[in-house]
This record gives sequence, structure tokens and C-alpha cells, in this order.
Amino acid sequence: MSFFKRLNEHVLTQPVLEIDLNRLLENYELLCRIISPAIPSAVVKDDAYGIGAGVVSKILYERAGCRHFWVAHALEAEKIVSDLPEATIYVLQGMGEDNIELFKKYHFIPVISSPEMFDFWKRNALKDIKPVIHVETGLNRLGFRENELKKLSRKDLQMFSLVMSHLACADEKDHFMNTYQLEHFRAIKEKYFKDIPATVSASDGAFLGKEFSFDMVRLGAAMYGINTAPYRENQMRNIITLKAPVLQIANLNKGEFVGYSATYRANTKRKIAILSIGYGDGLPRSLSNVGKVFFKSSERWLEARVLGRVSMDNLICDVTNVDDLNVGDFGYLIMDDYTLDDIARDAETISYEVLSRIGKNMRYLKKYLLNAR
Amino acid sequence: MSFFKRLNEHVLTQPVLEIDLNRLLENYELLCRIISPAIPSAVVKDDAYGIGAGVVSKILYERAGCRHFWVAHALEAEKIVSDLPEATIYVLQGMGEDNIELFKKYHFIPVISSPEMFDFWKRNALKDIKPVIHVETGLNRLGFRENELKKLSRKDLQMFSLVMSHLACADEKDHFMNTYQLEHFRAIKEKYFKDIPATVSASDGAFLGKEFSFDMVRLGAAMYGINTAPYRENQMRNIITLKAPVLQIANLNKGEFVGYSATYRANTKRKIAILSIGYGDGLPRSLSNVGKVFFKSSERWLEARVLGRVSMDNLICDVTNVDDLNVGDFGYLIMDDYTLDDIARDAETISYEVLSRIGKNMRYLKKYLLNAR
Repeated sequence: MSFFKRLNEHVLTQPVLEIDLNRLLENYELLCRIISPAIPSAVVKDDAYGIGAGVVSKILYERAGCRHFWVAHALEAEKIVSDLPEATIYVLQGMGEDNIELFKKYHFIPVISSPEMFDFWKRNALKDIKPVIHVETGLNRLGFRENELKKLSRKDLQMFSLVMSHLACADEKDHFMNTYQLEHFRAIKEKYFKDIPATVSASDGAFLGKEFSFDMVRLGAAMYGINTAPYRENQMRNIITLKAPVLQIANLNKGEFVGYSATYRANTKRKIAILSIGYGDGLPRSLSNVGKVFFKSSERWLEARVLGRVSMDNLICDVTNVDDLNVGDFGYLIMDDYTLDDIARDAETISYEVLSRIGKNMRYLKKYLLNAR
Repeated sequence: MSFFKRLNEHVLTQPVLEIDLNRLLENYELLCRIISPAIPSAVVKDDAYGIGAGVVSKILYERAGCRHFWVAHALEAEKIVSDLPEATIYVLQGMGEDNIELFKKYHFIPVISSPEMFDFWKRNALKDIKPVIHVETGLNRLGFRENELKKLSRKDLQMFSLVMSHLACADEKDHFMNTYQLEHFRAIKEKYFKDIPATVSASDGAFLGKEFSFDMVRLGAAMYGINTAPYRENQMRNIITLKAPVLQIANLNKGEFVGYSATYRANTKRKIAILSIGYGDGLPRSLSNVGKVFFKSSERWLEARVLGRVSMDNLICDVTNVDDLNVGDFGYLIMDDYTLDDIARDAETISYEVLSRIGKNMRYLKKYLLNAR
């Protein structure tokens, strides 16, 4: 090994997850313009899709003036509330026996989605809190069905501060469900909630036209860079860079196998790289034998195919055509030219699931990029 | 609503993850007997496959006398070291520029898997630490290849305290790779590491026969209840119960759709339940339209099929045949009669990935069952 070679050596072990909060703010601001004059609100449930609800909600609050936040569970609200003194935090799963104390303590706003929960609410109603009512318009998930709305009294109906529904197919512009749900919601609002503000759209609905925005839009996936309008080029910027160091480079002889259950066999001599990342870091195991890793060479990206099964801590890829690769160099799993949407397509799932899985893992060196103000 | 009905009402919002540490200890002890006289060691990487590395390593240390632990990353070792004063902690990804400080501080044992890492080790060798050498025998993942071993000096070879390799197909008893790797390893050991203790098997290898156990076995998946010998009945006990409360029960009319992208349509009138759990809680989204939920009725389990897509916070299932179901009742996603292995098969992945994803989520009420001593 020459002296020169030795100087270039770098041995690294840890995968790196970079989250560009500047771009997240840009995305949020563009979405605000698209939905204006509707009020923006931020969906930070599931730890802000794994990105970190504390960090995300704080910068949206401080730098973008966001004052409305949505989480799924009251304990998610508890994690962010101290940094958001003037904000309203809505809890989508609502209030029950197992989280009522958090509502009492912090005054979160529960979303009431069933007669049973409404009954529980009335027995335990908290002073100064007007809950949200969730009405079902076609997704057939949570929300009051019309036969249940009919049973509510005039007084019941006036207890709510906001009426919400949720779209089933808003990522397909011309899907019949969009018009169907919009009309269904309008009819319900006219009949039961004429004077109450409304929210129907999440970030996919934001691109369907102003008529879907009502008084408030719940901005989530698009803010995090996901293309929620896949029928056209993404208007959002990618905020995620995921990379892992090469732990080892090796040759594979014709006939040799790779990985668990020997699912890849070399038909010709190959060069392989073993990266320090696996499904234990949230990478979908369904990328086995189909995923891609990218290596920077000068200013180009060179593509390497995943070989064999993705394992818990490692993946193996074919770097036969990647020149000048060294141990300690980074292979990129997600970046501007191969985004969450791309990796999700290759993993046969949706970007939301990939993002939700990756961010929660502790083995990353997690870097948040944020310019000084 | 009758008074009696009201008394039975219970509104809950939070999914529950129960981990039976008593059974984990039983599994560990059975595995110890199977591999005896080889020394047992515990694989607690990836936060003990999501179960909680701190909790798992502490009880194995205190109650089962385990003194050897394996993690993938030095920062995982850092999280457990304070509770394991007399233990040896091996770090599979080894030592690099990004974690050398942790090795200096805590005296973890790095696994050296490449010439480059060995070179780095020699330049930075830490007093009183004898590393592990990883040799490659057929998996074609990490480890010295034979042409690289040849270049090591006699002095180099004596620096190691343990030689390890890893099996590719040990969950298939008669797979040709098992014999191939065993013979390959024996030849390498004979030639280079005659007097150094060896470890080749993880928990799947434990069931292949004593000749695979050498001096130490690395017990992971089987200890956590996974059947690593799927060619026969599981000898391990399930340690995971995952359940989520029913948030709402509703009727579905003929022709109605369920969930995102309207992938399920009711051909006949159905009754559905919406549960408070989704892929944001680590449940594989690939269970969409194929997964199962179980409800307890008297002493029987009633099975309900997942309808439509699993979403981030919720899933919907068909409870047409589940009588006496109420809001707040629990649907079971994993339990003794539908284990990690079963859900993984339905999700078209492996139990390891399912377990690794579920445990890391913060929205569960996480209960560890452990008897007083």
C-alpha cells in the first residue's frame, strides 16, 4: 500500500441522514401561497413522519408563523407543546380514557370522530375547549356517518370549533372520488355546520384547486418533499439525503452467491461494495435485488444495483462500473436525483412509509441543515 | 343508549405493545442448553431488534448471567454499557474515524472485517483490546476474503481474540451452503487461527447441530421468539403481543369503497372497524387488503381481514362476523396464535424486519412483563 493511498484512507461506520430544514420552510411557504387565503396548518404526527416533530414544529412556529398543528396521538402533542406557546394542537385520534389527562393538562383540541367518543367527551368536557368534529365523506375511515350526524342535537352541533373530513384519492387529479367527496362534504356542511370553519384537504388536496381548501389545509407530506401530485412534476424540493459509508469492497467470482438465502448469483465476475446500512436503519427490505445505490464520481452519479437480500445492518451492491471507489466513500440511498418517491417506487410502497421508517432510527448521524436567520 | 350499555363503554386511543421478558429469558435458557458447551452471547443490535437493548441486555446480564453482547454500532454499545459492568461488548461494524472515541472511552471490542479497517486499527490500536476478526465464508458480505488473510503476518494473526464468520442459509437445514461454509470456515481456522476461539452461528445456526456452535453462539432472533428453524415447529415462545383499540365501528353499504386510492369495494353490506394503528406504528403497509386482525370472543379468536390500504395511523378491517364488538375493544395484530412469523409471511417479509420496525415507535403504551425474582 503506497503512502499516497494511505493518506486517502478513511474508515467510517455510521450512516448519515441529512434533513434540509431550509427547503422544508421553502416547501411550506410555497404551499401557503397555493392554498391562500385558506389558513395553513402543519401535520407533524408520527414524529413529523420520522423527521423529528420537535424540530419541525419549532421552526415552522418560529420562522414561518405556523400556529396550527396536527398530531395523531395526545402523547405526540405533549412532546412538542412546550415550544409552541401560542399554537393550537389538534389530536386526530381524539380523546379517550387513556389520554384524557394530557388534554386536561395542555388543552389540546381533540378530533371527535364517533358517537362513542362524543359521548365520552360530553361526560368529560373540558372547559374552554371546543373540539373538532370529523365527518366521513367517502374514505370510510374515521368520522361521523350521516345517520350519526342526524342524531346530534342543535346544541351538540354548536359545540365544535372546526369540521374536518379527509380525501381518499386526492393524489389522482381526475379521480371521481374527489368530486364525490367534495359534494358530499358541501352538503353536510350546509346542513349541519353552516357557520363552522372547515378543513378537508391534506397536502394532496392542496393541488386540486381552491374549492378543496375551505378554511384550512393540513400540510404534511408535500412539506416534507413528497410529490403528492404525481400526475405532474414535483413542485416541492427534496429535503432528505441518506447515505452510508462503504465498509468493504470485494470481488465476486462467477458462480458465487450474495446474501441471505443466496438469492443472487454472479454470472460473471463482479466487484461488490458492502455498505453500513440495512433494514434495521429503516431501509425497506423489499429493495433486495432491486434497489439502487448512487456513488458520486467527479460530477456524475454512478448507479449500483443492490445484490441479494438487504440485511439488518448492511446492504451489498454491484460496483463493477464504479471506478475509484474506496472504503469510507459514501453510497447514496436518497438524494435530489433519487428522491423518497423514487426509492418508494423501487421498494413497491409509498414515500410516506419510507420516510416514516427511516427517521426514527438511532444509528444515523442525523444532521439538520438550517441557515442562520 | 341504555344505562347498561353506557357502563360498558370505554374509549381508548393508544395501541399497546406487550413484551414478555419472562419468555425471553426462557428462550435464552433453552438456547443455552441447545448450544452447550459453547458459550452463549446475546445479539442486541438494532435496539435489540426494536425491543429495547437497554432492558434486554440488563435482564440477560442480571438474571441469566450473560456476559457477551453483540451490537452493530459503537453508539448502540454506548447505550447499554453502564448496566453491564463485567460484560464484553462486540461491535460488528467495527471501528472507524467516526466512532473511535467510543472505543477509547469504553473499551468495546471492534470486529475487524476488512484490510482497510485492520490498517486503521493498527494505526490506532487501543491498549488491552484484542479485536475480533471477521472472515468471509460464503455469504459475501463483510469479512476478510482468503486472498486478504494470506497477506496478514504471523504477528497480525495473533492480535485477535476471536474469529467469526456468518452463515447465509442456516434457516434451511439441508441447504448446501451450510456444509460449504462449515468446511470453508474449518479450513480457514486450521490454517490461520488454530488456537483462537471461534463463532460462526447466530440463532439459526444453533439448530444445525453442535458442529456449527464452535466456542460461542450469537443468540438473537430465536431469543426474541422468531422461528429460525422454520422447517420444524418453533421451539421458542412468542414474546410479543401487539393490539390496538377500535376507534369506531361503521357499516359499509354495497358499492362503497375503503381507504386511500379506493382499493377495496364492498360487494355486499359489511361491518367495519377502524383501529388506532397504522404503518406509522411500524405495521407493514404491505398488509393492505391481506392482513388479519383478531378479536377475542369468549375464549375464541375471531378473524377479521384488513380492508383497503393500511394508512399511517389507522387500519380498517371487516368485522361483519365479529359479534358483540364495541368501541374501545382491542384488535390483536400479533399474539401467541398469530406470531411475528405469521404476520411477516402475510406482509411478504421476514419476522426480523417486522420486529425491528414495530418496537421503535413511540406511540405505543409499551409494557414489559417480568416476574419478580
